[in-house]
Amino acid sequence: MKSNRAYFRVSRLAALTLCVLLLAVVGAYAQNDPLPSWNDGKAKQSIVAFVEKVTMEGSPDFVPVAERIATFDNDGTLWAEQPMYFQLAFALDRVKTLAPQHPEWKDKEPFASLLKGDLKAALAGGEPAIFQIVMATHAGMTTGEFEQIVKDWIATAKHPTKKRHYTEMVYQPMLELLTYLRANGFKTFIVSGGGIEFMRPWTEKVYGIPPEQVVGSSIKTKFELRDGKPVLVRLAEINFIDDKTGKPVGINQHIGRRPIFAFGNSDGDQQMLEWTAAGSGISFMGLVHHTDAEREWAYDRTSHIGTLDKALDEALAKGWTVVDMKKDWKVIFPFEK
Amino acid sequence: MKSNRAYFRVSRLAALTLCVLLLAVVGAYAQNDPLPSWNDGKAKQSIVAFVEKVTMEGSPDFVPVAERIATFDNDGTLWAEQPMYFQLAFALDRVKTLAPQHPEWKDKEPFASLLKGDLKAALAGGEPAIFQIVMATHAGMTTGEFEQIVKDWIATAKHPTKKRHYTEMVYQPMLELLTYLRANGFKTFIVSGGGIEFMRPWTEKVYGIPPEQVVGSSIKTKFELRDGKPVLVRLAEINFIDDKTGKPVGINQHIGRRPIFAFGNSDGDQQMLEWTAAGSGISFMGLVHHTDAEREWAYDRTSHIGTLDKALDEALAKGWTVVDMKKDWKVIFPFEK
Repeated sequence: MKSNRAYFRVSRLAALTLCVLLLAVVGAYAQNDPLPSWNDGKAKQSIVAFVEKVTMEGSPDFVPVAERIATFDNDGTLWAEQPMYFQLAFALDRVKTLAPQHPEWKDKEPFASLLKGDLKAALAGGEPAIFQIVMATHAGMTTGEFEQIVKDWIATAKHPTKKRHYTEMVYQPMLELLTYLRANGFKTFIVSGGGIEFMRPWTEKVYGIPPEQVVGSSIKTKFELRDGKPVLVRLAEINFIDDKTGKPVGINQHIGRRPIFAFGNSDGDQQMLEWTAAGSGISFMGLVHHTDAEREWAYDRTSHIGTLDKALDEALAKGWTVVDMKKDWKVIFPFEK
Repeated sequence: MKSNRAYFRVSRLAALTLCVLLLAVVGAYAQNDPLPSWNDGKAKQSIVAFVEKVTMEGSPDFVPVAERIATFDNDGTLWAEQPMYFQLAFALDRVKTLAPQHPEWKDKEPFASLLKGDLKAALAGGEPAIFQIVMATHAGMTTGEFEQIVKDWIATAKHPTKKRHYTEMVYQPMLELLTYLRANGFKTFIVSGGGIEFMRPWTEKVYGIPPEQVVGSSIKTKFELRDGKPVLVRLAEINFIDDKTGKPVGINQHIGRRPIFAFGNSDGDQQMLEWTAAGSGISFMGLVHHTDAEREWAYDRTSHIGTLDKALDEALAKGWTVVDMKKDWKVIFPFEK
């Protein structure tokens, strides 16, 4: 009896110890999962497998830290882009703010329709109309003044339906991916069709990506001395469009190295992914597929914003990673956590 | 007597100990001098004082690591530029190499004079002549092909009088300065009028500056699929001239942050230094003044290459740091050590 009881006591102690150890291991494992907002599945597995291959010394696919370049599209890849590109929302807000200084806009399209609240009529003019709106709101001030305008807007403006600040509408799983890559020696860059100076004022705080690692579209600037003080004045003239075939051009111009890891979400990213895939070693090409009409938006081949058609075909044909937002992401936005 | 001898012994021991200590301290100091090729003087002192101010936590001039941006001109600031810009030497060598494929050059200026060895006649055509030489040698191939051409040339070509590889003709004191700044959390950039793709293949190895931190002049490139493989083709069309008022434009475009430390050597760097000086906190502006006709070259106001005239006046008027190569630098080139 006595020895039995002692045996029982010892077993109970052993079981308890085992439980504690087990819980500790599971806890440590959960804590160590670098991508907790990603469901286990092909997308997550392909990311982790790639990172492990290129970072394992002695592996045939090992890539030195200096060459671990990762590029990310922004609109629709790192933050949302519906019901319109957030930078367009910025431009429309600016038109309203500037209207008192431009009485002539009342009779001039696309401004007249915009100020009446008829966005559809305003944008009916297509690219020339958008060009006019962009230039009226993005040019004519110094770079310092524009930076402050963007900072003020981004700190206050809210998304029309989600009622959240735009910088809250970033994708939690992608934030984790950026952190995971950097923890593994990658240098993370944005390569976006959006305006470079529209992104830089907030990308460091929101994504941990400093201004010098942001590539985007731009207008020309001009150096001037104003009262002896040098300024850069933003001109109403396109400098560079960082979209489609422009993305590899922008990557080469700005980074001067080919990425080994690239993520996009639309046909505008197709050439960036092709350029990445054409490197000499292994590479990772990923697309965010917007499939979650409930938590975010669902759109692809026929959408005007973030059209994903040819790039999706190429991704499927070549075995690139396609993230199914609905299935692959536990959480979309940080505020859902 | 006995006590005297003992006293003497003790004193000798004390002196010996003191000597050992003194030597150790001096040795440690010498080892710890981050700029051993700089003579003690105003230039060195102003650099060290600036770096100590911006890196000392709690100092009113403290600058967070992310904002410690340092920009350096290349030609005449990090490496030599006489008797002609090294990139022009590259272009001339390329004309000779390519001549068999261009029989028409025999009767076409500026190529005809060049191939006869008459550089002066070739360059008599001024900028249009230089433009033709540059485009004939820098455009028409893919970015990958051009990179290889530069790598091959830089590995083999030698300076006409110093008989050294061009990458040996970098300034030892500036190499030390780059290392010193990086050790203090600075991100070091090149901002040069030279071709961005001419510098990138070797700046990481020679200066520790990676391709993504090189800003320079460029020609346009175009994305193409060749046999299904994406390439960037270099076009005979100027994209950007990173010189004079172009330097702040290039800095803003590429870095998106204002430098707090900038070094140049010519009037081409004047606006970069003005842009740096106009920041909100303290800043360091430096000029390398070529004063050493014996070890390097002596030239400034009237030189065609690296003209230093207006920027020198501004530096003197505003108290910017002017490095007197002859007096301030113990060693010019690494091979002199």
